This record gives sequence, C-alpha cells and structure tokens, in this order.
Amino acid sequence: MKVVTAFSERLGLRLPLIQAPMAGGPSSLELVIAASSAGALGSFGFAYTQPEEMKRQAAAVRAKTDAPFGINLFVSPQPGAIPAAEQRAAIEALARYCRELDLPAPEPAKAPYAPDLEAQFAAVEDIKPRVFTVHLDSVPPQRFQKHGIVVGGSANCIAEAKRLEELGYDFVIAQGGEAGGHRGSYLRDPYQSLTGTLALTRLIVRAVRIPVVAAGGIMDGAGIAAALALGAQAAQLGTAFLPCPESGASPVHKEALLQVTEDETQITEKFSGKPARGLANRFIREMATAPQLAFPAQGNITAKLRAAAAKAGNADYVALWAGQASPLARKLPAAELIAALERETIAALRANAALIKE
Amino acid sequence: MKVVTAFSERLGLRLPLIQAPMAGGPSSLELVIAASSAGALGSFGFAYTQPEEMKRQAAAVRAKTDAPFGINLFVSPQPGAIPAAEQRAAIEALARYCRELDLPAPEPAKAPYAPDLEAQFAAVEDIKPRVFTVHLDSVPPQRFQKHGIVVGGSANCIAEAKRLEELGYDFVIAQGGEAGGHRGSYLRDPYQSLTGTLALTRLIVRAVRIPVVAAGGIMDGAGIAAALALGAQAAQLGTAFLPCPESGASPVHKEALLQVTEDETQITEKFSGKPARGLANRFIREMATAPQLAFPAQGNITAKLRAAAAKAGNADYVALWAGQASPLARKLPAAELIAALERETIAALRANAALIKE
Repeated sequence: MKVVTAFSERLGLRLPLIQAPMAGGPSSLELVIAASSAGALGSFGFAYTQPEEMKRQAAAVRAKTDAPFGINLFVSPQPGAIPAAEQRAAIEALARYCRELDLPAPEPAKAPYAPDLEAQFAAVEDIKPRVFTVHLDSVPPQRFQKHGIVVGGSANCIAEAKRLEELGYDFVIAQGGEAGGHRGSYLRDPYQSLTGTLALTRLIVRAVRIPVVAAGGIMDGAGIAAALALGAQAAQLGTAFLPCPESGASPVHKEALLQVTEDETQITEKFSGKPARGLANRFIREMATAPQLAFPAQGNITAKLRAAAAKAGNADYVALWAGQASPLARKLPAAELIAALERETIAALRANAALIKE
Repeated sequence: MKVVTAFSERLGLRLPLIQAPMAGGPSSLELVIAASSAGALGSFGFAYTQPEEMKRQAAAVRAKTDAPFGINLFVSPQPGAIPAAEQRAAIEALARYCRELDLPAPEPAKAPYAPDLEAQFAAVEDIKPRVFTVHLDSVPPQRFQKHGIVVGGSANCIAEAKRLEELGYDFVIAQGGEAGGHRGSYLRDPYQSLTGTLALTRLIVRAVRIPVVAAGGIMDGAGIAAALALGAQAAQLGTAFLPCPESGASPVHKEALLQVTEDETQITEKFSGKPARGLANRFIREMATAPQLAFPAQGNITAKLRAAAAKAGNADYVALWAGQASPLARKLPAAELIAALERETIAALRANAALIKE
C-alpha cells in the first residue's frame, strides 16, 4: 500500500515526500542517506558548501544507496564590496553579544561571502543528482536538465511560479508563509509574500501547469494529505526532520523545537541578511531594528556568535529556523518518521474518502 | 452523493460548509437565505446591527426556509470615553480624504460606539439560531447553549482554542492567517498570531477535542477537502461568497475582488481600530502609521468616508476585506457556488483516495 503521484513516480520515490534541503548543517549527509533510503527525496542544502565537499557528500550517499537524492543552492547574486562604515555599524550591533560569550568582535565580512556559485553549478552538473532546486532567485534550468536532472524552484507568489514555468522549470515549490528558514521571494517584497500554504498552494496549482510541491507548516500525514487535496504532487517537509538523530541541527536547536507549544516563530533578517523564519529568541527580538549587512555577508559576521552559542547550549544567539507548525515536531529516526508519515497520509486519505455518503 | 461529517450532521447541513458571517453588509439577508437554502450554514455578521433589526432579519430567513442559520457577534469590550486630543489627531488623519470626497471632517466618536452587546445577546437568546459564534473575544457559552444553540468561537492560536474548550464551547473556528476581515485574536498579539490555515488547523485539531472549523484562504472544493484532511469538520468561507449577487458587499468591493490576480492583501487597523485583512488600497497604504481610535470607535469616524467612497465607486477608501486566496474568487449566485463547492469537494476527495496504490 503506497501513495503515488505522477511526480513521485517520475522521481522514483516511494512516497510523494521531499526532505527539505536545510543549508548550514541540518540536512546532513546522514539525514539525506536516511531520508532517501526510506523512500523520500533526501536533499542537501548546499548553499554554504564548497564544490569539493558537495562532491564528497554526494559520493558518500551513492556509496550507501541507489535511491535518488536532491541538491539545493541559493542562487541570489552576492553583494559587492561593503563600505567600512556599514561594516562597523553592523559589527557594533553584535558587540555586546560577542562580549557576553567572550568572543572578539567579528571581523568585517570579505568577498566572496559564500562559495562561488558558478563552481557550485559545475559541481551539480558533475554530480547529476536526480533533483536540483534553487532558492532565492531563478536561473535558467536547461544546463542542468540536459544532464537528466529534474529542476525545481521556489515561489512565494503566483508571479514567481509563472516565471519558473516560463523559464522551463520542471516543477515549482509553493513555499507558504508557514515555512521555516529563508523566504524564497525573488520578484516581490518577501513581507508582501507571506501567503499561507493552503492559499498559496492552491493559487499556484491553478496558475501553472507544471507539478507543484507544497511546503510550509506540514508536519504529519494529515498535512501531506491536505497538500495533495490542494493539487500538489508532493509535500516538502523541513522542520519535521530537524529533531531526527540524523539531522545536523545543533542540540540546542532540536531541544528548543521539541519544547515549543505554540507558534512562536518570527521572521528575521539579522542572522543572514535575508528574511527567514525561526523560533523567536533574544537575538531576533533585540536585533529587530539593528543595522545589518546584505545577504549573505550578515551571515559571515554572525557566524562565530551562532557557533559559539550553539556550542555553549545557549539558544539566545542560534538561528533556530522553524516553521509555524513546530509544536507538532517529534523526535524519531528519519526512517521511522517517514514510515509514520506514510501511514498517516494513507489513513487521512481514506478517512477523507469515507466522508462521501450515497 | 454528499459529504458528511459528524458536525455537519449535527447542524443539519447538506455539506460541511459555513458561509462566513461578514459584518457591515456583505452577509446580507439575501445571502444568508441563499446559503442556508442551498445546504450550507448561512450566517449573519450582526456585530454592527441593532437587536430589533437582528430579530427582523432572522424572522425574514425563517419566512423563506426552515434551514438552519447562524449569527455572529463581536464580543470585545467597548472603550470608555476617548480624550479630545486623541479624537482630534485621529480625525485630522482623515481630513484630506474627506475633503477629496467633499465630506465635512468626521464628528468625534461618541459612546456607545456600537450596539449594546447585552441587548444583542438577549436578541440571540430570543432568536435561537441553530448556531451562534463569537469573534474578538470569548464569553461563557452556557446562556446560549441552554436554548439549544450550538456555540462556537474563533481562535488564532492554540491557547485561544484551548480556552474556548475550557469554557465549554461546542466548536472552535481555526482562523488562519489567510483569512479576510478581522483577526479573532483575544489572548495573544494578533500580529504574532498570523499562523497559516494549514498549520493552525492541524495544531488546533491536535490540541482540542471539540470539532474544529477551518477558515482562511479556502475558495473551492480542493480547499474544503484540504481542511477535512487536516481533521477539520467543516470549512468556513467568506471571501468566496463576497462576489455573489446576493452578497451585500458594495459593487466596488466585488469588482476589486474579481480583478485581483495576486495576493494583494494587507492587514490594517485603520478602518475599524482592530487588525483586519483586506485588499491593499490607498487608504491602507497611506494611513499605515497614522493615529487611530480604539475599536470600534475608529469605525465610527471612518464610516462616512467609507460609505461615500463606495457610493462613488472609489475603491481607495473602502474596506475591501478579502482573504489571501482572493484571486480564486468567482462570480456565481450563492446556490450555484455551493453546488460547485460540493462537486469539487467530492472530486478532490476521490482523486485523493485514488492516489493510494496496492
């Protein structure tokens, strides 16, 4: 007994489920292996990963399983050199937190602020994952498609989904307002594109012909069944996988997530320079109006603070990326979580069908 | 062939669908008659309606149909006398718009700012509608329940849903962030309670034992099927009914809604004094940081401006309440809309079940 869509069949998945790429650690090699081996699409968030390391990890997956996996990159252009005054103001805003953790003030951010995107693209062409998805912008998909890679992009509004379709993308991820982590907005103000997953998925399903993957606030089989009811061909879950033992999220991140009993998330730009949703903590609250550098340079100057706080088990300064349905997070090995998601999806689909009476 | 839940059966509905109460005109007598006659729960938004008029309209429904209908009231306490300086500042912020429409400056708001709530409650007890729902706060439901009325309340977070359950409410409406009109928040900052419908519905279904009705961003049968998959026992749709010929929404409101091609909604307090979602227009944008009176007094001083603009066919100053899935609005008589929603829901439930393969 399994749940099959045209999209899950095309990708060779056991169920229409994508383990969301989560850059910066959470979507570890172990998590991708576990998720893909269990029949979902395990996915690397390689935004901050150098090409050689991308290749090493991809090879390590293939040494363990023949199952398909995905790679995601952030494809927004990097800023140029940042004026010294801007650097000083942004660093000054972090000073007291650094002092609190006995860290020196951050060094000014220096270009390149992230791995070279062209070299990362070449690594993707070299690796040839089953799926490649982009976030924060759109790039022509053809150079990847010609290697047999299925290419998807993220949309926070109808216009972004239509643009991806026009560019020739194979599928679109409708990233609803509930979603944890970075907002994928690239044509519209991200703060004007916080449409909820239920509304956004349906709007995009009705607006484009390519398959739609629903993302944001989906934590169990009922959520996956809802996504399918909206016409999505798969669901992408990130937060649900964060507490897995295989996930590379810091212990403090996992713990915070499992303790939350209400949607306590907030959107902040202060960790990376671009808006992303996470559990509200002292840093998010106090930094609300502080000066910041452009993405991803802000991430460079906050890196040591975040790492030191995570190491010290201090949740105040860690980017606790999480979606709005975080209170439904559970601590299960990835394979058990995926098996539970499959059972629950089938149960929800059946219960739904049983509501039809002659 | 029909869709039945325990909740829709208890209320005597043909399908698990509530036509949302929409105070201030849209949920007109004609709309309630049409919706209830077609098997949904037609609902009056009587927040701004005097008790005698409530009784007159309820009697008029009963003269046309035996079908159940609902009544909704805003139950937040009214503010006391408002200082003259505060009144002057709020009125001054409206002055240039009034001049533009050749209106005199508004008179200061005078208590009572809205119909007497106790008298409205007495009218509800007298009318004995099948369903009574409250918005913006919670009041003990027992005085209504003892007349055989089924009582529901609105929640924007888990805590609010739990509180309603504790108070003895029969059901809770999970009002997701997508929803048009006034946010129902009453325990938490409404701006911290913009959890999307998909996440919120599931969170509340998992948190309480009473039936949950999903609201926000649901415009078609796929949306209703998604709500059911999340464990909701019914869906409440407001925006979907606005363009109906029977709805009392102004022509300029209906037209704006049918023209929208993207989620262009925004939350504003400037029409009424409490946050509500509507299509962004000049008033919402320009008034963003303007001084305002407390709810519902702000509604008193903006009333003539809104009415004059609506009459002049000028969308700039009309409260164009709308949910985030507005681009899916269609212009159909209520009975045809409800028939389409039923067909679509059944089709979505069946298509969903067909995804299960042996």
